[in-house]
Amino acid sequence: MIRFDFGHAHAFLKDDALASAKTQAAEAFKKVQTKTGPGPEWLGWRDILANPNDALLNELDALATAIREEADVFIVCGIGGSYLGAKAVIDALGPFFGSKGPEIVYAGHHMSGRYLSELMAYLQQPKADGTSKKVYINVISKSGTTTETALAFRVIRKWIHETYQNPAKHIICTTSSAGGALNRIIDANGYKKFVLPDDIGGRFSVLTPVGLLPIAVAGIDIRALYYGAVSAYNEIELNPDDLLSYAATRLALYQSGKAMDMIASFEPELSGMGGWMQQLFGESEGKNGKGMFPVLLGYSTDLHSVGQMVQEGQRNMIETFLVADKPAGSVIVETEDDDADGLNYLAGKNFHFINNKAFLGTREAHVEGGVPCLSIHFDKIDEEHIGRFIYICEIAIAVYVYCLNENPFDQPGVEAYKKAMFRLLGKPGF
Amino acid sequence: MIRFDFGHAHAFLKDDALASAKTQAAEAFKKVQTKTGPGPEWLGWRDILANPNDALLNELDALATAIREEADVFIVCGIGGSYLGAKAVIDALGPFFGSKGPEIVYAGHHMSGRYLSELMAYLQQPKADGTSKKVYINVISKSGTTTETALAFRVIRKWIHETYQNPAKHIICTTSSAGGALNRIIDANGYKKFVLPDDIGGRFSVLTPVGLLPIAVAGIDIRALYYGAVSAYNEIELNPDDLLSYAATRLALYQSGKAMDMIASFEPELSGMGGWMQQLFGESEGKNGKGMFPVLLGYSTDLHSVGQMVQEGQRNMIETFLVADKPAGSVIVETEDDDADGLNYLAGKNFHFINNKAFLGTREAHVEGGVPCLSIHFDKIDEEHIGRFIYICEIAIAVYVYCLNENPFDQPGVEAYKKAMFRLLGKPGF
Repeated sequence: MIRFDFGHAHAFLKDDALASAKTQAAEAFKKVQTKTGPGPEWLGWRDILANPNDALLNELDALATAIREEADVFIVCGIGGSYLGAKAVIDALGPFFGSKGPEIVYAGHHMSGRYLSELMAYLQQPKADGTSKKVYINVISKSGTTTETALAFRVIRKWIHETYQNPAKHIICTTSSAGGALNRIIDANGYKKFVLPDDIGGRFSVLTPVGLLPIAVAGIDIRALYYGAVSAYNEIELNPDDLLSYAATRLALYQSGKAMDMIASFEPELSGMGGWMQQLFGESEGKNGKGMFPVLLGYSTDLHSVGQMVQEGQRNMIETFLVADKPAGSVIVETEDDDADGLNYLAGKNFHFINNKAFLGTREAHVEGGVPCLSIHFDKIDEEHIGRFIYICEIAIAVYVYCLNENPFDQPGVEAYKKAMFRLLGKPGF
Repeated sequence: MIRFDFGHAHAFLKDDALASAKTQAAEAFKKVQTKTGPGPEWLGWRDILANPNDALLNELDALATAIREEADVFIVCGIGGSYLGAKAVIDALGPFFGSKGPEIVYAGHHMSGRYLSELMAYLQQPKADGTSKKVYINVISKSGTTTETALAFRVIRKWIHETYQNPAKHIICTTSSAGGALNRIIDANGYKKFVLPDDIGGRFSVLTPVGLLPIAVAGIDIRALYYGAVSAYNEIELNPDDLLSYAATRLALYQSGKAMDMIASFEPELSGMGGWMQQLFGESEGKNGKGMFPVLLGYSTDLHSVGQMVQEGQRNMIETFLVADKPAGSVIVETEDDDADGLNYLAGKNFHFINNKAFLGTREAHVEGGVPCLSIHFDKIDEEHIGRFIYICEIAIAVYVYCLNENPFDQPGVEAYKKAMFRLLGKPGF
């Protein structure tokens, strides 16, 4: 269903380096399973797959259906792991143009005053038929005090209270089980609440209500998504060989001195999944001077951009292709009488076939240019495969980071900018 | 109007390294001025600023006005430098939600069959009022045989010919002055044509019709944009010191062993300009094992993602912030009685003030973490400043790449994937 191809990476590795990495990866996987590695209190993203909570899926589905019947705009208000997973899945499975339900917009992920003022004006602008927009917001914050998210929520929440007779219906909160500012606000206002389990960090939270509610509101089958991940979990518990080969190959390449991992795809709908993977990997492995910087590339357009540098720049990178093996919504090239553009040699071929040759040609060229290439193949891009991919990335990075002797689940460096910013803002206590 | 801040980079450099880089940059700038460096036949992007062509600006403006009065959708069909400049300026100066005129969509920048089939369905879908959409396309290709662009153009052009009584009105071509497939198609069909001068490469072409027509159709003042670049050109010819300090600082940092340049901004509207800069820099400097890989980051959301790695990963990067000094469309934080979210300490402050402190705090944290930080400050984000920024980036990278003893204007590595792809596709002659 999802398969790896290491054939274009192993040639860059010595046999003993790869064998040693495989041993390390196998040991690391055992530590994950037995909760004996760093950060054992953060492994809840596995437990929710070992014991699926169908009642929660049903509850999320029911609320999403109600929202989809009424909302014109659904605001996802969160930063980093609080929205990237939802955005990734919605980008992958939703339409390129328009939406299959309420328009999904994002807020609270930066502090641009221009963006927020234009968003507020947009919310207040009537629809084409002259009626006013019905707006819902899902605020997602473990604490409720993350500055970016809390600021946007303060502004939008005030507007919702001024605008709707029953504001509580329009505000859904996803936060920790107890404590924190958002829980106080929920209690005081009677907002609907979903819980981000205490043992799951933001970047591992897409299969909790953090990601699932916005994904369901976007009209995507969260049960198929979730059970795709459950299938991957069960299969890897039984036979982790392929997964461990992936982690070990990436580890051995890193240990050979590589500094960057290009996450590249020829499928534009996977760009968001690449962004989610970039956060998951970067925030998990970038510690104590370690890790490969994950860079997101969209081909073939980026082949006409930084592709030059992938081909001929510093030889310090690996490349990970996300590949769709089967076409979706394809277009066939038709013959033209005059063949003025010289493309008749492709007549009768569908775009997927051509795009796949672009992938194969690019991989060949990059390998020849000295870039070890891995690829992760989706049989097709649907809920089940995206769910599988999510768990595969989560377990792969946990194993890989254990091999670096680091904690995959913390992010101590993120505090540094916050501390300096709070001091400059005169926040009490800083 | 646009100023550099090197204060947080020079501490990472030895005085003699910086002095040597400055000497190299000054010599390189003379080579650009006297057309005595590599690729002297590609310096037309300077000539068009030395001798502005007002008649061309008027012609582009007049056509754009006519299109804006009629079109619902305007398709920009091109890849790499053929659309990234237009997209960058439109993203920077257009609204976040909706558009100030026809909806601008992109095609021909990849070969996703799913994307193209959804685009074709979208074009055929009636508007909210039941009438059909009026669609225009601007195809941009030096040769007309770039596979990605030519394939999409073949499909959309056929549909336009089947749909409109006067198809030639709906198709505008930007291509080389003579020769090539697109010129043959133009001649046979009577399409409107604009010229990409033969001495300007794709990634330096945003201030030619390549970029200016889509930008004008989006409702942006191309005269102010263009003359912003002209001002920067004239000022730097008279006094290149600041510009050369920027190029020299970046050069000295590269020579000290850095592998990546994080192009980061707290202003989401600058994300496209960062993407354009990423192409301009990456494709110009990534040759013969040289160059720093330009990575695009959007803060503060990416501080909750790869920010961890910028703070604590491998110490192989520099960071270039794009900063807006003055606010645009700001929002003021209001006091709340209960202060449940603890944000009252920011009451009365506008978002721009807070966002600026986030920038200052982040720079401080990253410098402390060992990342040399440059910043490029826009007094404000408008046509004139974006125009200035475009020329500043163009001349800076030309000077910098001359210092690496490379040709900033070619892209030999981009041919590698094309050759392999053509062979796999069975293209005659490959």
